[in-house]
Amino acid sequence: MKIDSKTFQVTPGEKLDLQKRATLSPPVYNTIAKYQDILKQHISDLSAQQELLFASNQYAVLLIFQAMDAAGKDGVIKHVMSGINPQGCQVFSFQHPSEAELQHDFLWRTTRNLPERGRIGIFNRSYYEEVLIVRVHPEILDSEGLTDQQLKSDNIWLNRYRSIIELERHLHVNGTRIIKFFLHLSREEQRKRFLQRIDAADKNWKLSYADMKERQFWKEYMYVYEECMSATSTAESPWYIVPADDKENARLIVSRIMLDTLTELDMQYPKPTAKQKHELQAMRKQLMK
Amino acid sequence: MKIDSKTFQVTPGEKLDLQKRATLSPPVYNTIAKYQDILKQHISDLSAQQELLFASNQYAVLLIFQAMDAAGKDGVIKHVMSGINPQGCQVFSFQHPSEAELQHDFLWRTTRNLPERGRIGIFNRSYYEEVLIVRVHPEILDSEGLTDQQLKSDNIWLNRYRSIIELERHLHVNGTRIIKFFLHLSREEQRKRFLQRIDAADKNWKLSYADMKERQFWKEYMYVYEECMSATSTAESPWYIVPADDKENARLIVSRIMLDTLTELDMQYPKPTAKQKHELQAMRKQLMK
Repeated sequence: MKIDSKTFQVTPGEKLDLQKRATLSPPVYNTIAKYQDILKQHISDLSAQQELLFASNQYAVLLIFQAMDAAGKDGVIKHVMSGINPQGCQVFSFQHPSEAELQHDFLWRTTRNLPERGRIGIFNRSYYEEVLIVRVHPEILDSEGLTDQQLKSDNIWLNRYRSIIELERHLHVNGTRIIKFFLHLSREEQRKRFLQRIDAADKNWKLSYADMKERQFWKEYMYVYEECMSATSTAESPWYIVPADDKENARLIVSRIMLDTLTELDMQYPKPTAKQKHELQAMRKQLMK
Repeated sequence: MKIDSKTFQVTPGEKLDLQKRATLSPPVYNTIAKYQDILKQHISDLSAQQELLFASNQYAVLLIFQAMDAAGKDGVIKHVMSGINPQGCQVFSFQHPSEAELQHDFLWRTTRNLPERGRIGIFNRSYYEEVLIVRVHPEILDSEGLTDQQLKSDNIWLNRYRSIIELERHLHVNGTRIIKFFLHLSREEQRKRFLQRIDAADKNWKLSYADMKERQFWKEYMYVYEECMSATSTAESPWYIVPADDKENARLIVSRIMLDTLTELDMQYPKPTAKQKHELQAMRKQLMK
């Protein structure tokens, strides 16, 4: 089955309803061997595109991953991005902001880690947390040193969306291609995965009671995700909602979307200028002596 | 053939003679298929060690790669480190320092990019350039804003070695394991590789006439490498001289050395505390309801 990237996009202006979006979609593979074949092919193609991205040095790529706990963000990054040259790839995981970071505006700590030209940057969580977890738990705002005017504003979330949209527009115009993934997990599948983690000695150190607490706010999270993605999915920097109850399928979809976006850039290896050609010939002569 | 990491080490205090060190050593593999098998196994083992490093969160690992042009630094990083979870791995390539970086001491720009605990950091070139290229071309010192006393000192290189040794000692004591690789290439093999690059459309954009110029200083470079590695190879942070005329062999040796160093750390997955165990059981109960 072919994956059509477009079907997973949030259309700009769309009033999103996550309940109408599948957390489980028809699998692209029918056996695990077939899954491995497709993933291997995707990774090999991505690897070639990444070399081109690096050589042509015109674009940067930013991948943003957002999701509920246990949706498979770490797994996607591990399974899709292993195999890509780590020299052209930077992963940043954003946890609780530090005291020093809180002394800056809410975009500062992430933007200073944006990928440079020629590289793929991966944000495992991102500035979007500022309109997701912070909106579900608005008491977090108290630590962000906002002015009274900002704190009392009914429009704080709209203002934040606007800041984000304008940042992303600026980045797009200046050569950064942004792909935003929401791994869409069902609450029941999260339950199963939490239970599996409790029993796995190499995984249960990752679990904490705080994860359980966030699970209670599922409905609130779905609401803020809907609001956020409806507001910030643009033609240039779209959101993709990836059904995530089937981990393997999610990895194939994510890698296909990345591949389609990179291929569309139609990048070329730099051609030597007349001067460079001349130099290369001079070098050859010298080396042949 | 088994690879014995130790044989590639520079013994602390050794007066190194690079001419006595092989640029080509008996290959570990006899066919390309066998090479791929061994590399695959090394990468899979490294990947498991990296997960442990991340989970146990006690050590950081810093890999330093130094070599003459075309010795295969980029290739080693690509072929050995692809396959490792990029979330636990950070590569930094150090080119000409910026104006802002030159306003700091010579260790500053690299140390601020040191890997955090749980991660593998890779320096493609490093602070060692400051006692290598800078020593071959001491006029570079003019841009480094040194005091007259430093500039006139006969001991500037000894002072820099000392700064480096003390930094690495400090890092070791605080949990960073440093492995330093010199990819040892023959001048003749560099000649062949430069010629190949001139003819490869996907590679000749990387070549510049400056690379040809540095080649003229081969003898000087070998001298400063010998001095540097003799002075800075310590029991805790040893230099390894990897024969690099055979790229595939070099990758197997480098990955074996990394693997031996990581395995020696004898890391374990964190065991849940009594409190955590209690929490995990409480979570299970809640999830089973």
